[in-house]
Amino acid sequence: MKRIGFIGLGVMGAPMAANLLKAGFKVTVHNRTRGKCAPLENAGARVADSPRDVAPGADAVVLMLPDTEDVNTVLFDQDHGIATTLEAGQVVVDMSTIDPASSVEFGRTLSAREVHWLDAPVSGGQKGAVDGTLSIMVGGSPDAFDRCRPLWEALGKNILHVGPSGHGLMLKLINQVAVAESLLATTEAARLIAHSGLQADKALAALRAGTARSGMLDLYPEKMLQGDFAPGFRIRLMHKDLRLAVNMARTLGLSLPGLQLLYTCFQEAEAAGFGEDGTQGLYRFMEKHYA
Amino acid sequence: MKRIGFIGLGVMGAPMAANLLKAGFKVTVHNRTRGKCAPLENAGARVADSPRDVAPGADAVVLMLPDTEDVNTVLFDQDHGIATTLEAGQVVVDMSTIDPASSVEFGRTLSAREVHWLDAPVSGGQKGAVDGTLSIMVGGSPDAFDRCRPLWEALGKNILHVGPSGHGLMLKLINQVAVAESLLATTEAARLIAHSGLQADKALAALRAGTARSGMLDLYPEKMLQGDFAPGFRIRLMHKDLRLAVNMARTLGLSLPGLQLLYTCFQEAEAAGFGEDGTQGLYRFMEKHYA
Repeated sequence: MKRIGFIGLGVMGAPMAANLLKAGFKVTVHNRTRGKCAPLENAGARVADSPRDVAPGADAVVLMLPDTEDVNTVLFDQDHGIATTLEAGQVVVDMSTIDPASSVEFGRTLSAREVHWLDAPVSGGQKGAVDGTLSIMVGGSPDAFDRCRPLWEALGKNILHVGPSGHGLMLKLINQVAVAESLLATTEAARLIAHSGLQADKALAALRAGTARSGMLDLYPEKMLQGDFAPGFRIRLMHKDLRLAVNMARTLGLSLPGLQLLYTCFQEAEAAGFGEDGTQGLYRFMEKHYA
Repeated sequence: MKRIGFIGLGVMGAPMAANLLKAGFKVTVHNRTRGKCAPLENAGARVADSPRDVAPGADAVVLMLPDTEDVNTVLFDQDHGIATTLEAGQVVVDMSTIDPASSVEFGRTLSAREVHWLDAPVSGGQKGAVDGTLSIMVGGSPDAFDRCRPLWEALGKNILHVGPSGHGLMLKLINQVAVAESLLATTEAARLIAHSGLQADKALAALRAGTARSGMLDLYPEKMLQGDFAPGFRIRLMHKDLRLAVNMARTLGLSLPGLQLLYTCFQEAEAAGFGEDGTQGLYRFMEKHYA
C-alpha cells in the first residue's frame, strides 16, 4: 500500500491527506472546489481534475465527503465517477459519515467488479484529523481491513474492525446518538444550575464525582455558562448525523423518543441560525427558544 | 453532638441509623410501621412510639422519609409532630429527597422558633447507606452544617455544603435530571446495538473509549442486554425524583424538553408495572412499549 487517491479536502479531509503525505504515501487528491488542493499540491500531492483520474495506479482510494449523495456521485457519476476507472483488486475506503444501508449497496455494486469497499467513519473531530489521532470504526472484509493497516496507522489511534460492511457506520451513528443525548443531559443540568443560583463550580464538581459523570459533562458546562460557543464539532454536522441515525432507527424498526427529540432540537437550532456553533451552542439555543 | 433522633427506617434509613449506632451515637428511632424498629432496638436504639417523642434530649433529629408530605406531617402534625416538642438550639437534618421550595418553607417556620434546619439529601443508593459512603449535599447555615460534622462522617464520604437552605435539594434534583437523561442515552444506544446486529462487547468498548462515555454507560448496558433488571435504584423512586425536578424547573420558569420526556417515560414505565425494576429496566419497558 503505497499510492493513495484522496477525494474530499474539507475540514477533515485536508489534514488527513496531509498526514498521508507526511507518512510517505504517494497521494493524488481531488476536490470539487479546486482551490482547496493548492496547499496539498505544495506539500507534494498530485492533483486530479476529476474523480475518475484519481483511481488509476492507486492501491486505495479514500473518500471524505459530506453526505450520502456526494459519495454516490463521486463513485457512480456516468462521466466522472471513479467507478469508470476502478479495477479489480483496488480498495475504496469511505471515511465519510453516510447512510449505512446505502453504503452497503455501494459496496455490493463495487464487489461485482471485484473492487473492495470499506466503510471507515471517524470520530475525534478536526483536532484528531490534524494530530493523526482519529478513532476509526471499520466495516467490511477482514482482508481489505488488514491491507489498509498502513493507512489506519497514518490517520488514527483507536482503529477497530467492527464487522461486515455497514457496521462501522452503524457504530458511528450509535456513538452520535449517545453523544447528542448526553449533551442534552449536560445542557439541561447547566441551565438548571444557572437559573437556580447554585455555585457552578461546586455543583459541577459534585455532578462529576457521581453517576451523572460523562464525557459531555467534562467538556462543555463551563463553555456553556461562560458563552464560549466556538466549534469543535458543529451543530450543522450533528444535525446531519442525527438525520442519518433517525433513518437507521426507522430501518431497524425502532422508536427512539430521545433521538427524535435531539434531532428536532438540532433541526430547530440550525433553523434558528446556530448551525455554525459548536454543539455546546445547544445551550444558548435552548436558553432562547425553550425559555 | 451525641444524641440523635432518627425518623424513617426504610431501605435507606435503617442502615443509616445502624451506622449511627455503630459510630457510638445514642439513637432514638421512630418508624410509622413499628416492626421496622426491632433490628435497631436489638442493636441498642431506643424506640419512640410517636415523632413527638423523638426530639426531647436529642442534639439533632434526622428525617429520612419518602416525600414532601411525609416530612410535613412528621414535622407539623398537630398532635404527633416533632414541632410540638422541638426546642431552641436543636437541629433538624432532613435527608429525604423532597420539594426544595417546601423545604425552604419548613426551615423558615422552624427558624421562627430558633430550631435549625438543614436539607441534606444523599446519593449513593442502598449500598452507600449500608457502607457509610453516601454523598451528602447540604443546604442551610454553615454553623449548623459544622455542628453536624460527626453525623456526616458516620454516614457518608463526599460531604458538600452547597449553599443556603434548599440548595442541597436543588443540586440533588439536578443530579437526577442528568442521571436520567444520561440513562436514556445509554438505553437507546443499547437498543440500537441489540437491533443492529453489532457485536455488543466491541461496540460498547468503542463508545466507552470516546466522548460518549458516561457513568450510566459504564454501569448498565450489559445488564440491559442480558436482562438483569434487579434494583439498584428503583424506577418508582426515579419517577418521584423527576416529578420533583419538573416542579422545580417550572418554579424556575424553565422549559426542559429532555426532563419532560424522561418524566413521561418513567411515569409510563411505572404505570406499565416496571416500578420495582432498577432504573435500567427503562430498557425493557421501551423495548415493549416503544417497539
